[in-house]
Amino acid sequence: MTNMDKLFDAVAARGPVCVGLDTDFSYLPEGFADPALTAGENIVRYNQALVDATKAAAGCYKVQIAYYESLGMDGMLAYKKTLEMVKNAGIPVISDVKRGDIAKTAEMYAKAHFEGDFESDFITLAPYMGMDSIQPYVPYMEKNGKGVFVLVRTSNPGAKDFEYEKLADGRHVYDMVGDKLSELGKSLMGERGYSSIGMVIGGTHSEEASEIRARYEDSFFLIPGYGAQGGKAEDIALYMKNGNGGVVNSSRGILMAWKKQPGVKFDEAAYNECVNMKEAIQNACNQL
Amino acid sequence: MTNMDKLFDAVAARGPVCVGLDTDFSYLPEGFADPALTAGENIVRYNQALVDATKAAAGCYKVQIAYYESLGMDGMLAYKKTLEMVKNAGIPVISDVKRGDIAKTAEMYAKAHFEGDFESDFITLAPYMGMDSIQPYVPYMEKNGKGVFVLVRTSNPGAKDFEYEKLADGRHVYDMVGDKLSELGKSLMGERGYSSIGMVIGGTHSEEASEIRARYEDSFFLIPGYGAQGGKAEDIALYMKNGNGGVVNSSRGILMAWKKQPGVKFDEAAYNECVNMKEAIQNACNQL
Repeated sequence: MTNMDKLFDAVAARGPVCVGLDTDFSYLPEGFADPALTAGENIVRYNQALVDATKAAAGCYKVQIAYYESLGMDGMLAYKKTLEMVKNAGIPVISDVKRGDIAKTAEMYAKAHFEGDFESDFITLAPYMGMDSIQPYVPYMEKNGKGVFVLVRTSNPGAKDFEYEKLADGRHVYDMVGDKLSELGKSLMGERGYSSIGMVIGGTHSEEASEIRARYEDSFFLIPGYGAQGGKAEDIALYMKNGNGGVVNSSRGILMAWKKQPGVKFDEAAYNECVNMKEAIQNACNQL
Repeated sequence: MTNMDKLFDAVAARGPVCVGLDTDFSYLPEGFADPALTAGENIVRYNQALVDATKAAAGCYKVQIAYYESLGMDGMLAYKKTLEMVKNAGIPVISDVKRGDIAKTAEMYAKAHFEGDFESDFITLAPYMGMDSIQPYVPYMEKNGKGVFVLVRTSNPGAKDFEYEKLADGRHVYDMVGDKLSELGKSLMGERGYSSIGMVIGGTHSEEASEIRARYEDSFFLIPGYGAQGGKAEDIALYMKNGNGGVVNSSRGILMAWKKQPGVKFDEAAYNECVNMKEAIQNACNQL
């Protein structure tokens, strides 16, 4: 069974919410941080409380490495420990690293994130340099069931700068990228109907959503943009397939749910937000 | 003075060779590694010997983070120490991290690589997500003189997959990216005629080299592809401007020069290779 199969089963069991552990020190509620500990150690404590509280309603977790890199060595240790805690909880984890390089360098990134201290189940990748920036990860998919999510059509305003541009053949840049990835995925199919090559497809734009879902029917989607960025459950649902086939990320919306639920403890607030989000998306999927 | 100005002056003083410290443990000559030390610690010792030997002939150094990430925490410490040793030598250093993300995440990457444990003079960036994946680094350019090199037209075979594709308006994808970056650079000009937004332009393709150089006359180029990847000094010279305006990277060609110079010690071999490369490029520039 591939990790993508396990992710499918996780979504079937606990829903499509992907809890983003993009934890900045400033997100910790007042009084939470222990001044005797480093910023990284406090972040690990916060993440542990969040994972314990949300794991019954989370399909998976996504750890955004940038937040940890920004704290230097202390942060990298917090990153390692955060990945370990999600693995210990038995829940799939996506490392949001968006690496993109070629040849031996890409092999090194594969080793970095699919083995050793920073081992993860999935990583995100950036496609700009071409398919030789994706290929070096394939051996880990074939041998260890690892998976990737490659940027295709993202949720940020700047996606219009390059991704949405039209090619001479009439396709968007993002179609060109998606088509090549989909082709590669055909030889990496799991048991649940999805390949080990997932795609990042932003949930903030709903135009062409049904076409994209139909065009890449073997591809599992990582869908950012819910909530704070403007993606609504009805839009997100268009990228799902029978209530599965995608995970929907929310980071700050969950990490700082306590700010919008006065009097509720931060971990309980995070759980409530997960449940609300999960139900909103599942209802929207059922109404399609 | 911006870091790009300092890089210009470094090239004027010591030539355009960018020594790539993409150091894999397997590159260390037999007998070099001290078995009492970790892989990362041995790599730091090797890098130190290389920097000491080559600094008189190196315009700058480039550290490829993937090689260090692949060793986990031990590697990240070696990465930190390698950046420090180049800074202690008073030579510009480029962190080849090819990060690409947006908004607060990009701010975190900027903090990670322009401050703290992993502080560098320059970083490389990937443009796929759009200009909002470049913008968050601008405050560090304005306030601290930091610089970036953004992927535009790379040296790998897969560059043909997406970068070389033609848009509806007749430009290549890489032209579209280069044009936007060049525009942003206009407001970030240094004293030597170059902006703080550099471009990665591979030296393996010589077609359209003169057009690219002329089109982006304010942009400093980081030119990979020399030697092992097939880029010749005559081709590379087309991307330089009066013998400056670019740095030319070589990693394995320098790190493992000892393999091609029997009987010569590894550090001396690396120095010889730097000098040969520098002279070949400078001669080719003079002959234009």
